[in-house]
Amino acid sequence: MAKLVALYKKPSNAAAFDAYYFSTHVPTAKKIPGLRRYEVSAGPVAMPRGDSPYHLAAILSFDSMDAIRQALNSLEGRAAAKDLANFAQAGVELLIFESKDV
Amino acid sequence: MAKLVALYKKPSNAAAFDAYYFSTHVPTAKKIPGLRRYEVSAGPVAMPRGDSPYHLAAILSFDSMDAIRQALNSLEGRAAAKDLANFAQAGVELLIFESKDV
Repeated sequence: MAKLVALYKKPSNAAAFDAYYFSTHVPTAKKIPGLRRYEVSAGPVAMPRGDSPYHLAAILSFDSMDAIRQALNSLEGRAAAKDLANFAQAGVELLIFESKDV
Repeated sequence: MAKLVALYKKPSNAAAFDAYYFSTHVPTAKKIPGLRRYEVSAGPVAMPRGDSPYHLAAILSFDSMDAIRQALNSLEGRAAAKDLANFAQAGVELLIFESKDV
């Protein structure tokens, strides 16, 4: 498997962020070819001893790093990346990696 | 479900980090009660347009945030947290959140 982890920094308006994220970004990103699973934080993204700089975390699962690269280069992947400018102005960290169970 | 995501900053000695992580930290952390799945990056943790500040990412899955809190407070959880000082001197970001499939 391979993962794309998106960590969204705290927005100035959390309610507006959430409304846009779930009504528009999720349906846009779900069209990305090769996406096997899409998990999103349901509640605060905390650190064990307190608050974090992040408002929302998403974990997208794919079959492989090649599948992620193809996904990001697809029309649907480009549309999802372009959509970030509409709600993630506070910043987002995108991490991609091959993953294995241990 | 709930997730604990650990993002390890790049260590000064990646080979020593990996040797310790897989031989000692993984077996230590796998004893944490309530741990349902433990996924680790197998290869670089990249950003879509290049390198990242992170060397290794881990995603630990639990049934709920309560299960994570109990896990972190357990003897085994405390042992795993204490073990971080033995190899994660470059820093680690720990994020915890309830997660849902979308």
